[in-house]
Amino acid sequence: MSEKRPHNPTDTSRRRFLNTAAVAGIAGAGLSVGLAACKQDSPAASAQSAPVTPASDAHAGDYSVPPGQLDTYYMFSSAGHAGDVRVFGLPSGREFKRIPVFNMDCMVGWGITNESKAIIGTNPDGSVKYNTGDTHHIHPSYTDGTYDGRYLFVNDKINCRLGRVRLDTMECDKITQIPNIQGFHGTFPDKRDPLDPAINRTTRVFCGSEFSTPLPNFGKGIDDTAHYRSLFTCIDAESMDVRWQVLIDGNCELVATSYDGKLAATTQYNTEMGTTYPEMMAAEMDSCLFFNVARIEQAVKDGKFKTYGDSKVPVVDGTKSANTDPKTALTCYVPIPKNPHGVNISPDGKYYACAGKLSPSGSLIAHELVLKWFDGELDEPRKAVVAEPELGLGPLHTAFDNRGNAYTTLFLDSQIVKWNIEGAIKSYQGDKTATVVLDRLDVHYQPGHGFTSMGETRECDGKFLISDNKFSKDRFLPVGPLHPETSQLIDISGDKMVIVHDNPVTSEPHDSIIIRRDIIKTRQIYNVDDFPNAVKDHKDSGVFRNGNKVTVKLISQAPAFSLPEFRVKKGDEVTIIVTNLDKIEDLTHGFAIQRYNINFILNPQETKSVTFKADKPGVFWCYCTHFCHAMHMEMRSRMIVEA
Amino acid sequence: MSEKRPHNPTDTSRRRFLNTAAVAGIAGAGLSVGLAACKQDSPAASAQSAPVTPASDAHAGDYSVPPGQLDTYYMFSSAGHAGDVRVFGLPSGREFKRIPVFNMDCMVGWGITNESKAIIGTNPDGSVKYNTGDTHHIHPSYTDGTYDGRYLFVNDKINCRLGRVRLDTMECDKITQIPNIQGFHGTFPDKRDPLDPAINRTTRVFCGSEFSTPLPNFGKGIDDTAHYRSLFTCIDAESMDVRWQVLIDGNCELVATSYDGKLAATTQYNTEMGTTYPEMMAAEMDSCLFFNVARIEQAVKDGKFKTYGDSKVPVVDGTKSANTDPKTALTCYVPIPKNPHGVNISPDGKYYACAGKLSPSGSLIAHELVLKWFDGELDEPRKAVVAEPELGLGPLHTAFDNRGNAYTTLFLDSQIVKWNIEGAIKSYQGDKTATVVLDRLDVHYQPGHGFTSMGETRECDGKFLISDNKFSKDRFLPVGPLHPETSQLIDISGDKMVIVHDNPVTSEPHDSIIIRRDIIKTRQIYNVDDFPNAVKDHKDSGVFRNGNKVTVKLISQAPAFSLPEFRVKKGDEVTIIVTNLDKIEDLTHGFAIQRYNINFILNPQETKSVTFKADKPGVFWCYCTHFCHAMHMEMRSRMIVEA
Repeated sequence: MSEKRPHNPTDTSRRRFLNTAAVAGIAGAGLSVGLAACKQDSPAASAQSAPVTPASDAHAGDYSVPPGQLDTYYMFSSAGHAGDVRVFGLPSGREFKRIPVFNMDCMVGWGITNESKAIIGTNPDGSVKYNTGDTHHIHPSYTDGTYDGRYLFVNDKINCRLGRVRLDTMECDKITQIPNIQGFHGTFPDKRDPLDPAINRTTRVFCGSEFSTPLPNFGKGIDDTAHYRSLFTCIDAESMDVRWQVLIDGNCELVATSYDGKLAATTQYNTEMGTTYPEMMAAEMDSCLFFNVARIEQAVKDGKFKTYGDSKVPVVDGTKSANTDPKTALTCYVPIPKNPHGVNISPDGKYYACAGKLSPSGSLIAHELVLKWFDGELDEPRKAVVAEPELGLGPLHTAFDNRGNAYTTLFLDSQIVKWNIEGAIKSYQGDKTATVVLDRLDVHYQPGHGFTSMGETRECDGKFLISDNKFSKDRFLPVGPLHPETSQLIDISGDKMVIVHDNPVTSEPHDSIIIRRDIIKTRQIYNVDDFPNAVKDHKDSGVFRNGNKVTVKLISQAPAFSLPEFRVKKGDEVTIIVTNLDKIEDLTHGFAIQRYNINFILNPQETKSVTFKADKPGVFWCYCTHFCHAMHMEMRSRMIVEA
Repeated sequence: MSEKRPHNPTDTSRRRFLNTAAVAGIAGAGLSVGLAACKQDSPAASAQSAPVTPASDAHAGDYSVPPGQLDTYYMFSSAGHAGDVRVFGLPSGREFKRIPVFNMDCMVGWGITNESKAIIGTNPDGSVKYNTGDTHHIHPSYTDGTYDGRYLFVNDKINCRLGRVRLDTMECDKITQIPNIQGFHGTFPDKRDPLDPAINRTTRVFCGSEFSTPLPNFGKGIDDTAHYRSLFTCIDAESMDVRWQVLIDGNCELVATSYDGKLAATTQYNTEMGTTYPEMMAAEMDSCLFFNVARIEQAVKDGKFKTYGDSKVPVVDGTKSANTDPKTALTCYVPIPKNPHGVNISPDGKYYACAGKLSPSGSLIAHELVLKWFDGELDEPRKAVVAEPELGLGPLHTAFDNRGNAYTTLFLDSQIVKWNIEGAIKSYQGDKTATVVLDRLDVHYQPGHGFTSMGETRECDGKFLISDNKFSKDRFLPVGPLHPETSQLIDISGDKMVIVHDNPVTSEPHDSIIIRRDIIKTRQIYNVDDFPNAVKDHKDSGVFRNGNKVTVKLISQAPAFSLPEFRVKKGDEVTIIVTNLDKIEDLTHGFAIQRYNINFILNPQETKSVTFKADKPGVFWCYCTHFCHAMHMEMRSRMIVEA
């Protein structure tokens, strides 16, 4: 890797890009053509005349997981604007769990229990501050360049929050709201510390903001769109506190991090800093923006930051004009073709692959060369680009195998293109004999994210690729106006890619990761001492009054609650604390109160509580909602609200 | 069928029942034994050492649905305390959709849009009245004794509501709260009118209440438990208004309806009308209670009813003491073994099969004989019982094939038992050569509901049975303390039952139905005129102020919203109305506002609205959350809230 490689500026000219209008036209046509295949007559007729995939696509049974057998991989998906995280098994494609994060979940009681409200955040009246979210991306914590089974990080694009899921319990334990930003799009944890070699694990999570606003955004400067800005944010992976932010030119799309901990990267589609569509399309090129983590943290230490509004988060200046000297620069803007979207680092840590729908090419940026730029040894950031292969229409995200190949989703072509990294570099260097594209596979339809088994780690194994497709059209039985999307499992172990199965997914399987099952070590039973308010002994169960505040302490232990009835008075503020004292795996109880809109579950040895006003007098049965035991139906209590 | 058949009272004695304590013991042991098989060591270790089902259970691939092929059946499931309805395909087991009903759904905007709030019901401050529910049972509307593809009815046990889902759009369109009851457990639509032969379709939905309370329940009589009562309710299937209620002795569990429209039935486990566990267990037998629909409606017409509290719903008297003369009785209490749970009518309309976990037997009640009792031609209701086969431990629900066989779930035995109806009747009549039990199949683990393809219709086809099991234990990769449940697909077309596949289901797949795909006719695109507030033309789009109330009318049409920005003032009550004018199938848009907690989708030609207070000044980007088009990322607007 060196600067000797010819740098061909014509490769970056507008002629290689699709004209914006043309793309819009193609996109429209692509959709229309694709959708024309969809039965427009009676759905029942459509159901009868099943569209047939060529038999070569279908390896029925080869990858089946018979009853009683276990899957070999976990797949975790961010569920887009459904706000949750989903857990699947592969290769079966079976969904095991939905983990509520930014949504509400009435089975779990997420958004109903005091414990979940404390994580989500509340308004002064005790109601949850937010009950919706857009779970965009999902990435696990790392140790030594591979997944360590501690955490999943997921981001909410609407309300600008980062959520964390503990992988041992598969439950959300923290949510942090990020100040000063809008459109929290991309996120990625770091993989090691940039300076301390002893810290070989994730300690930071990086967050990109897509939408620029006035800073601070309190109603001033609303028309001064030239001064709207975006920030790049770093959050502490353990405390989940916001550590620092970087003011940038342009905006942030997807985020990637290097294996050595030195750089974080984000693609930028609006380097023009426009607020309207034509303004955002004006420039010839956009960028992949790199952040020098160690220098940024030194700048924060040195007090070279400001803050905005009420926020105390230090914001350093990462704009171009403040970072002209590479040797002190906090940021490096590498020009790449218009509107890049995905950025993914290869498992050997050498290259960032970027692609975006307005160019039919991908860009490969060498990590080593970006570091050289920061060292003053590369004269132009653009020279860090080592390949720009032509991939097809609408390239978005790139995944990798362990044999030097990349797999890019082509949104407009509805394809996965498999290409060789070294071939692309040689071709860019002028070698006309180099083979770049190795295979193309039609997917159904319009893929967004694509990702391979362990593909974002050093343990990338090259076995499976998932294509998360935005449209299912006619692939499944019709279910009304809202169609599912399609998650297609593809075997990439051979020379040709093969579709294993189509899985319908309730919108939106936005982003996912595939993890070997041996990495995940779960707890099936809580430690009762994890809950400071646990009711550990039947003698502690009872009704405790303090003025008009009443605390009801209950134990659920099959087949009964500790109190067959409890009495409160109309107008009381009632807090009910329930501990599930059962210790048997899978022995979950539920607790619901008739007509009082209260419902939650308690896993073995777990404690939860709810607080509400007893505003209706009368007899209100409480019952176990989660099938627990042969006597489950009889597991009841009575709340008596005296008038 | 006649009364000549010997009536053996010893069959009903307590010695045939499991002693309550013994059941509790067995249940505990059953659970413990079952769970002992579950790895208590590291879950990862458990993942490595997959438990193996005998190969004879696994017919891998025989029932697979290759990529691009469609399923042959729909399965609709009530999701228990998750509050939604789920749509699957069979035999693949793939989940296509979750329909929000009693839960909140941030993708759809269910509980967020004005339209959904109007269906759910609101508090005076505009917040939703209920945001949780327990979707217990699910049944479609009928015409001519089979499913007609119009509606699904589902009930909420916690907040006592009946919801209706339109099958053409697969969306909830009505929710009715039922007065005077608690623990709305069982529900079933009728299949024709009891009197008018022209009405050969569902026009009523029957609802059973499990928990008895004072009537009215406003804080008086809270200690007078002997006067706690349950009601049986009838709701109009079209208007969804509550038509009438019946005061009964005992309570209601599951509900069934006859094919001729004349009777509704409910099982009763607390005929003692006890409030404590020992009180509920005191009696030798409980009942299956039958309602004479025509007579009840005549009594209502004749003004023979009362009302309770604020409710205007007429309540007729169906207690035993008020219905001693069969010829005028509204109700018939048929004694059957202790604590019956399920009641299911055979597809030939002849028999109600009841079973409950405290007796190892099932009870078969002849429809014709119950009618004879109402005609004064049968001296004792008990004589309507024509068989009581010994089935196994913990029998709960019975499904049927089209060859005269029944399939009962055995909760404690973790089995499905296949038995022959005529064999059971002959055996009850004393024929010792009669074969009753034909097959037993282990399921994994502890089945609740079991149901066959088209099994609750005259078109019952005897192909598949689903066993919805309450515990999955070690059947899937571990996902923390909360395990999924198991939905097992079983081929019942041959002599021996065969498990086809295990499907993990997020709790709780409470009840389900399997419908042939040709019956379901969906709409993929709305009619824009279905929405009175639709913004049909770009010239109608804009910001309309009336004092501090502002209406923003928007059109979403790929790739843009009709307004690139809109302005309101801090403190305004803002209503945003959005119409998706795209007409292409599967072209759904989303609408979200940054940091304003607003998020919903719009299917093609659909209109939705939200109303909120503009309490934060500044610039707030609005964006399309549902991938719609190549230019989806750029589909934005700006809400400017002036300070």
